[in-house]
Amino acid sequence: MRLLRIGEPGFETPAALASDPNAPADETLVVELADVLAAAGHTDFDERFFGAGGLDSLAPIVAERIAAGDVHPLAGRRIGAPIARPHQLRCVGLNSSDHAAESGMPVPDEPILFTKSPNTLVGPDDDVIMPRGATKLDWEVELGIVIGRRSSYLASRDEAAAAIAGYVLVNDVSERAFQLERGGQWLKGKSAETFNPAGPWLVTPDEVDVMNLGMSLDVNGERRQTGSTATMIFDPLTVVEYISQFMVLEPGDLINTGTPPGVGLGMTPPQYLAVGDVMTLSIDGLGSQRQIVIAARTTGAAS
Amino acid sequence: MRLLRIGEPGFETPAALASDPNAPADETLVVELADVLAAAGHTDFDERFFGAGGLDSLAPIVAERIAAGDVHPLAGRRIGAPIARPHQLRCVGLNSSDHAAESGMPVPDEPILFTKSPNTLVGPDDDVIMPRGATKLDWEVELGIVIGRRSSYLASRDEAAAAIAGYVLVNDVSERAFQLERGGQWLKGKSAETFNPAGPWLVTPDEVDVMNLGMSLDVNGERRQTGSTATMIFDPLTVVEYISQFMVLEPGDLINTGTPPGVGLGMTPPQYLAVGDVMTLSIDGLGSQRQIVIAARTTGAAS
Repeated sequence: MRLLRIGEPGFETPAALASDPNAPADETLVVELADVLAAAGHTDFDERFFGAGGLDSLAPIVAERIAAGDVHPLAGRRIGAPIARPHQLRCVGLNSSDHAAESGMPVPDEPILFTKSPNTLVGPDDDVIMPRGATKLDWEVELGIVIGRRSSYLASRDEAAAAIAGYVLVNDVSERAFQLERGGQWLKGKSAETFNPAGPWLVTPDEVDVMNLGMSLDVNGERRQTGSTATMIFDPLTVVEYISQFMVLEPGDLINTGTPPGVGLGMTPPQYLAVGDVMTLSIDGLGSQRQIVIAARTTGAAS
Repeated sequence: MRLLRIGEPGFETPAALASDPNAPADETLVVELADVLAAAGHTDFDERFFGAGGLDSLAPIVAERIAAGDVHPLAGRRIGAPIARPHQLRCVGLNSSDHAAESGMPVPDEPILFTKSPNTLVGPDDDVIMPRGATKLDWEVELGIVIGRRSSYLASRDEAAAAIAGYVLVNDVSERAFQLERGGQWLKGKSAETFNPAGPWLVTPDEVDVMNLGMSLDVNGERRQTGSTATMIFDPLTVVEYISQFMVLEPGDLINTGTPPGVGLGMTPPQYLAVGDVMTLSIDGLGSQRQIVIAARTTGAAS
């Protein structure tokens, strides 16, 4: 099952993909699910929905509606992030040995964790805003994990697998000067508005072999990143089990699992994004994204 | 105005303090506000409430109810954190020159930011759970800032002041081995369940001179920390203005502003908390807290 949220920012409604995931956008069909969620007391793909096991009951309804032809064309409507704003957005750093090397950092002995603000989440094709003062805007194609149940001290990889609602393509957009040259922890360069495009879909684990998904990212049509989840130092189940030893994972939480080689920071010389640049990225089975870099508003304070 | 949330965890109801802030607990009186919030379409002191300017309309209603004698004894009911789970819990590190020195770290040129999981928030007198495997559990009395409006690129200290809903006493509980010896970023030692007692009250800015509040923390009745907001390297307005340059602050967000000297990590030799230890802490005008350290459950996975 591939779940998505359709509509203008803040007004997305829940749906499921009804057509071939590889079909072009103008042939994409969806099953609307707002009424199904409402009947169960839910409004969105959010913490309450996942925590109440809302995902479990959807598959037969989606199948039934597809069989009945109760499907609708996506028809140019905006796709949002496939989950409503989560309790927390956590990230694993340097989780590919090649990416650690290009960043000039040692391969970690255990997962490095950092966070992004949950309000960085935007849709897969939304614009990415260059923050004021940014000079080193960079890209990172990544596999995102969405948590399905409240979890603490998971004791095995099987328990971790049972705690995962699904997977999503994300772009862990970063401003390297803010991240590495402004003192202390990384979140300063990870948390600007629009810095975490996600989607188009939340793909349930039964649909993909998460341990072997090819991934890539282009800038202005030139390939920059090529990788695979197969080369992660810490695989998704290890990551979830590990994080649960340090904090309580909530339903709907998003975990970015780290990027493969090929970020701008690692190029010789480093190469960063400019206004007007276009990022296109994809992971096998998880769909594609396309973002244009735009300038931040330069006047006004309160957002 | 001093706002609080009363009741069992997950079932707190909004209220305001009606008695002298220095009165003993058994003489504490409150004004119930659940009906007032409900009439305005709100359920809690949360992002929606603050974002809609809910705070602005409360003061006259609280005054009216106090004048009419419509007050109730707190009478042993639990006090929760005074804000519902925020979008984000951010923290400033090493924000006192003496604390930086005792931690063996240089005084930062600009604020160091890190995060805690929002689900670390508990009431001011709730137990603090020693995580499994913890060996270096530590205390940090701090001033917390609650954000009142969505804010980005604040351009002055005046704009920062206008973005603040109020202040709250917090204990930024930390596990130093997880924070400093397990690779990478600090959040690993900052995010365990119960690691952020907050309260008893959210105090509006008109009630306190936030630039000059004494603060202290005792362990088992022995004074460990003594400080003042007057000795912060970056004061609360600077902190809010600064953070808003890197990310969008949401209404109801909580910012811990850093601890004064006297943490266990800084003692010679370092001294950490054991199960059964009692922390008592206070900030002038913001009230007091008391937590007992208890052991984590040692069996079972999912929380």
